[in-house]
Amino acid sequence: MTATVPADLKAFLDTHDARIAGELDAFLRIPSVSARTEHDADTRRAADWLAAECTRIGLATEVIPTAGHPIVLAEWRGAPGKPTVLVYGHYDVQPAEPLDLWTSPPFEPTVRDGKLFARGSVDDKGQLYLHVKALEAHLAVRGTLPVNVILLAEGEEEVGSEHLAPFVAEHAARLKADAVVISDSAMFAPGLPSLLFALRGLAYFEINVQGPAQDLHSGSYGGAVVNPAMALAKILASMFDAEGRIAIAGFYDAVKTWEETVRARIRALPFNDEHFRAETGSPALGGEPGFTTLERLWTRPTCEVNGLLSGYTGEGAKTVLPAKAMAKVSCRLVPDQTPEAIQRLMQAHVAKVAPKGVTVTVTHLHGGNPWRGEPEGPFFHAASRALEAAFGRAPVLTGEGGSIPVVGDFQRILGAPVILMGFGLPGENAHAPDEWMSVENFTVGMRAVAAFWEEAGRI
Amino acid sequence: MTATVPADLKAFLDTHDARIAGELDAFLRIPSVSARTEHDADTRRAADWLAAECTRIGLATEVIPTAGHPIVLAEWRGAPGKPTVLVYGHYDVQPAEPLDLWTSPPFEPTVRDGKLFARGSVDDKGQLYLHVKALEAHLAVRGTLPVNVILLAEGEEEVGSEHLAPFVAEHAARLKADAVVISDSAMFAPGLPSLLFALRGLAYFEINVQGPAQDLHSGSYGGAVVNPAMALAKILASMFDAEGRIAIAGFYDAVKTWEETVRARIRALPFNDEHFRAETGSPALGGEPGFTTLERLWTRPTCEVNGLLSGYTGEGAKTVLPAKAMAKVSCRLVPDQTPEAIQRLMQAHVAKVAPKGVTVTVTHLHGGNPWRGEPEGPFFHAASRALEAAFGRAPVLTGEGGSIPVVGDFQRILGAPVILMGFGLPGENAHAPDEWMSVENFTVGMRAVAAFWEEAGRI
Repeated sequence: MTATVPADLKAFLDTHDARIAGELDAFLRIPSVSARTEHDADTRRAADWLAAECTRIGLATEVIPTAGHPIVLAEWRGAPGKPTVLVYGHYDVQPAEPLDLWTSPPFEPTVRDGKLFARGSVDDKGQLYLHVKALEAHLAVRGTLPVNVILLAEGEEEVGSEHLAPFVAEHAARLKADAVVISDSAMFAPGLPSLLFALRGLAYFEINVQGPAQDLHSGSYGGAVVNPAMALAKILASMFDAEGRIAIAGFYDAVKTWEETVRARIRALPFNDEHFRAETGSPALGGEPGFTTLERLWTRPTCEVNGLLSGYTGEGAKTVLPAKAMAKVSCRLVPDQTPEAIQRLMQAHVAKVAPKGVTVTVTHLHGGNPWRGEPEGPFFHAASRALEAAFGRAPVLTGEGGSIPVVGDFQRILGAPVILMGFGLPGENAHAPDEWMSVENFTVGMRAVAAFWEEAGRI
Repeated sequence: MTATVPADLKAFLDTHDARIAGELDAFLRIPSVSARTEHDADTRRAADWLAAECTRIGLATEVIPTAGHPIVLAEWRGAPGKPTVLVYGHYDVQPAEPLDLWTSPPFEPTVRDGKLFARGSVDDKGQLYLHVKALEAHLAVRGTLPVNVILLAEGEEEVGSEHLAPFVAEHAARLKADAVVISDSAMFAPGLPSLLFALRGLAYFEINVQGPAQDLHSGSYGGAVVNPAMALAKILASMFDAEGRIAIAGFYDAVKTWEETVRARIRALPFNDEHFRAETGSPALGGEPGFTTLERLWTRPTCEVNGLLSGYTGEGAKTVLPAKAMAKVSCRLVPDQTPEAIQRLMQAHVAKVAPKGVTVTVTHLHGGNPWRGEPEGPFFHAASRALEAAFGRAPVLTGEGGSIPVVGDFQRILGAPVILMGFGLPGENAHAPDEWMSVENFTVGMRAVAAFWEEAGRI
């Protein structure tokens, strides 16, 4: 029998639609940029705001300090004998820069063409908040939940979740759950609900090249002093071979080749390279030879320059030989690569190729393990039924090129399956200017999650 | 007979030493950063200040507009039948950034350990102003000058002197001179007066690489979209071969090998690689194989990265696949390379190596021809005698890695020999934080130039 979104819950969400939109607006206005110390107070304010809302709807809520940003832990344990499900999300957001590329200011949420534009709209405040609202619907309409629920929201996802895994490990008994549900990913296409079963990991580095002790006149010294910016360019260029494969020795050693059955399912998804290219605005696609675009994104590791800075970057010309050059470089990882192993390989590679005349340091800023789940089990099927109930069609299985490092941590520490039920959409500009979340997906997402609790109660 | 600094002029300069220092302080406080439009008013103010001072000492002075910053032209033509000498300098300065690396603020001149620290102290306001003061000494003490003098100061030297050569060409009759004297370079060592007879030229480029239309999430897109920062690194790295030679096709075709006699004179100068390295703070020196450090700096062309900018460069980690990447790249040129030819070679090279999936543009921001003079002629010898009189020893002949593009222009347009009589010193941080000029060289430089007019009057 096909599941449905319970009518009483749907009615509650419809009735309170405007109020909910207003609450989300308030949440998004808080610039909780975890990477920036000048936003520490804002990040704390977002945690407090979320905690107050969880308390208001009937959850027993705490804001628990960590050595970094706090964790919001909200619990409802009124269903003894029933399963316990942990919902994870994050209330911190990416930096909004470059600000001049936003059509409307990043922390002034604005709806245009059915899209809610704001930093954090889809990553992850909107997706976290629709969970809060689905829980509110159950508690407000029925005074109870079908299962026990732990909602855990951290404020350091965008800076590597340094304190989350230790927190989960320390509180493993309290956080013991039969499943973990996370909405921090995208559907494969509009109207096509998706369950994610593969995530890439991450190893993020900062490479600093120091040449002379201070900036020099490029005329008076150029040609005899090694230029750190040119040295950095050589180091970065050496990370790829001429065909587009990563040339860091040992980089692919731990990479598993995916089963042909899974590769076939990926190839069967409705995907068009030219549409994808046009969406990015790139002149042409590229990448590792021998793989399709989706395989490159979901099943293969990569190495990206995320930032470059050296010397004079202002208007006009300045003939400076820079003292230093910096690159932010990150590798996306796939099973069974680990950030620790990639850090060793990266540092060995840079040490090998760094030219004489400069001093190079490679700092590992943060990392996360890659993850692959299994598309089965009662909670996975409950999620499938709930998504079908809300969206009117069965979900597809997808991979994701991005990282949610905590997924592997939850699975490892709690021993529970992780269900990745995302409501973002392709092109949503997570981590870029003009980030948006589909207003419809927010609405349907609340209904889907409300239906999920109903289905989970039947397990 | 050995020349001397005339006692009456020396006495005047000694008597007015404190006043002169105060005037120079006021001149240096004007942030005449020609590269920055927000300093346009300051740059104009520096021109007006200089013109007022030239008028005060008795020169017929005009501030003549150009399409950019104005030219200060100050003349004294009271010696009919005598030669005419044109003194050139510039009142604009380099940008001062990065400000946090200055020990004292760049536009608050401060003397420490006999060094006058300020942006523009040595490049070129201090060296220009000592000429004004040497002229003042003659005019104040004797009411006359031994030769006719034209002092021409421009405000665009640090941005390529775009309007100077057209100005000189247009006013060639008025600017007709028997010699041109410029103090905008350094002595080879403290106490060792120097006459410069070789300057490198310049071709300065900005390379812009555009990938996707906007910044993308490096997880969701990384591996399938060509990364413009990595593309830029590959382009830059391709400009050198493994041995340190420039690998841009045709780059060395016009480069003349210097005569062995000249190379021998360069090698005979008191120069120590380890001292030079220690002065720069670099871990090791480098450069084109087969040449000494001074030959690399004075006789060989180079290619330097002056600036890099792409993606996220702030604190912490941001997993962005940047939309674009920018490099400022400049080549120092030697005879008979030209900026125009190097621009063609650079553009052809970048077009050849640019990877698919990005759009690359190479913009030539400005350029200047290299120059080599001949160490002979009456004005050259007058300068030699004047420097020996002031410093107590004969000058050495030196080359210079930096560019004063106007030198070639003056020689070509006016057909007059150019005498390069610099009073800077190695390590003076021109174009870098903590720029300084030796207080002693400023003082002795005024005397040397005063003596030069005396010697020139005897030609």
